[in-house]
Amino acid sequence: MSSPAVQRAAAFCEQFGLRCPVIMAPMAGSSPVALASAVASGGGMGACGVLAMSPEQIAGWAAGFRAAGGGPLQMNTWVPDPPPARDADHEQRVRDFLGRFGPAVPSAAGDAQPQNFDLQMEAMIEAEPAAISSIMGVFPEQWVRRLQRRGIRWLAVATTVREAQAAEAAGADAIVAQGMEAGGHRGAFRAERAESELVGLFALVPAIAEAVKVPVIATGGIGDPKTAAAALVLGASAVQVGTALLRCPEAKLNEHWAEALAQRPWPEDTAATRAFSGRLGRSLRTAYVQAAEAPDAPRPAPYPVQRGLTKPMLRCSFAGPGEDAERRHLGGHGDGLGGPGGAAGARPPGQGGCGGHLEWGEGDP
Amino acid sequence: MSSPAVQRAAAFCEQFGLRCPVIMAPMAGSSPVALASAVASGGGMGACGVLAMSPEQIAGWAAGFRAAGGGPLQMNTWVPDPPPARDADHEQRVRDFLGRFGPAVPSAAGDAQPQNFDLQMEAMIEAEPAAISSIMGVFPEQWVRRLQRRGIRWLAVATTVREAQAAEAAGADAIVAQGMEAGGHRGAFRAERAESELVGLFALVPAIAEAVKVPVIATGGIGDPKTAAAALVLGASAVQVGTALLRCPEAKLNEHWAEALAQRPWPEDTAATRAFSGRLGRSLRTAYVQAAEAPDAPRPAPYPVQRGLTKPMLRCSFAGPGEDAERRHLGGHGDGLGGPGGAAGARPPGQGGCGGHLEWGEGDP
Repeated sequence: MSSPAVQRAAAFCEQFGLRCPVIMAPMAGSSPVALASAVASGGGMGACGVLAMSPEQIAGWAAGFRAAGGGPLQMNTWVPDPPPARDADHEQRVRDFLGRFGPAVPSAAGDAQPQNFDLQMEAMIEAEPAAISSIMGVFPEQWVRRLQRRGIRWLAVATTVREAQAAEAAGADAIVAQGMEAGGHRGAFRAERAESELVGLFALVPAIAEAVKVPVIATGGIGDPKTAAAALVLGASAVQVGTALLRCPEAKLNEHWAEALAQRPWPEDTAATRAFSGRLGRSLRTAYVQAAEAPDAPRPAPYPVQRGLTKPMLRCSFAGPGEDAERRHLGGHGDGLGGPGGAAGARPPGQGGCGGHLEWGEGDP
Repeated sequence: MSSPAVQRAAAFCEQFGLRCPVIMAPMAGSSPVALASAVASGGGMGACGVLAMSPEQIAGWAAGFRAAGGGPLQMNTWVPDPPPARDADHEQRVRDFLGRFGPAVPSAAGDAQPQNFDLQMEAMIEAEPAAISSIMGVFPEQWVRRLQRRGIRWLAVATTVREAQAAEAAGADAIVAQGMEAGGHRGAFRAERAESELVGLFALVPAIAEAVKVPVIATGGIGDPKTAAAALVLGASAVQVGTALLRCPEAKLNEHWAEALAQRPWPEDTAATRAFSGRLGRSLRTAYVQAAEAPDAPRPAPYPVQRGLTKPMLRCSFAGPGEDAERRHLGGHGDGLGGPGGAAGARPPGQGGCGGHLEWGEGDP
């Protein structure tokens, strides 16, 4: 006789063709085929965050995944916001501020355009993953119908109970409950509410599990077997894992980023900030993040303008280990498991090694 | 053969003379003898939040608790901050703002003085509870020695790993890990850091459990057997329970507050705010809280000035059910278990009925 949590997990695994209820987080820029393939072959679900990828790149990635053995897979991109309001004077202040942490920022940097959402959706559907996940809102109805016709499951990221209810009403097959512990971007449907509606995973999972009928996948701060087990006890049917997978050899992570993750800061060393992209996300509290929090710092420009403006700084900082302040080692509360300097060995995927959700990688626009 | 979590809980129960690893939260103004006594006789640890109580009131409460049967008990008061900086012009703006939600606020309202910490400590030690708990900092060394000589355990509330480490180094016998889900006041050692160091319970408990050798008590968002079990799985030895106990008959709660708790909002309906006391705490997002969050609202005065200034509004609002905006129904994320309108019956203490930590009661200064 097994516990309700184990029964939920078993039912989820059967529904999604998994041997263990662990899903790789779709980390844009940090989803190499080798990592997704290792997770899928280990019994979990691999992932590809396609946010920064063109349709051709998506098709190429999917071909590589199939060639490597294939298996259960989720793909993910952001539900787009309306175009941002531009303010040249304010952007100039942001550029001046960013120039203190990296090279001078060209005025055209803010013009960066995200990939075309509809073309990305077409390409993902053509790739026929087991699931496509939404974040920052729900998929428009036309795409929900397309997914259903192709038998592709829709996993909907929610940061509040009401977002989960809205996603279920729109046809989501499962809810990814993203706690405030999660690294990388918050999935808040309304960007302006992201700070005021930070909900801890400990309260979010049971509340969403009670509010919806579809399975709940917990993410944020899940970093080892005991956190995975606790999430199942709270009402989840599966867990989604990001950061801890990044130090697996298959992740091929930039060595400086990998080293920063190995330091494993305490939870309070991370901060929820808009300083990197204009959208709220959790990051290490670097000198840049701290400076951006100061009252006299210019507020970040809206997404994707801020993302474009910070690119020169971030690109520069990835070149070497010298500039701690600038590196965008963005991780969640779960990174802290083990504490500073803890000897976090890279764990094989699918064996409970898992950390905070982390979405900001080198390819993230 | 029992699990490590069950073994930890059993060891904690033996150490503290409990039959179940449930501790009542020391909710100032909401710790009637009857409630503490019911929890203690049920096998848990009762509590008294003495923050607003004079030494004589503390002695009287303790005598009543002994007369009712006694048992395991914690008492709690705040480690005081330096006196606040006063700003008459700013207080005038706050008074004008508060006047929109209640009666006119007299200028002297901001002069409210908290009880004398040393005298409260003397009175608590005389009462000989099993434990005295700190919040908002660590006890000065002289008091730690006094507690040790009397065989009274020191439970130290911590909101970050570093606070927990500092408390252990100062001699704490156990750490109360207070997640950001908790209702009522945050225990942040440095008030100014309370917003930027909000850590979710899901990440806080395992991180503190790894960083300290003493037992960890989880609090914040714990609202039923499954959340209690999850906290133990995460590394806690016991759980501290506040809000859910408030609807027990023994809590004798103001009927309007009890009714608001019965509505059980979703987690996102609460907000971390300084609007009630000047110290950050979690509350329902009432119309007053929303108004206080607006950019043009005056920032709250420091504690305890803001506490004094809001008293006329709060006292008025407790008089009747009509003014939803003003009522100070301050609860944590755990209140949301069950969702709006859920039929949360009052559960007997010591049987897993438990909710978010909640400290703001009628007697809270």
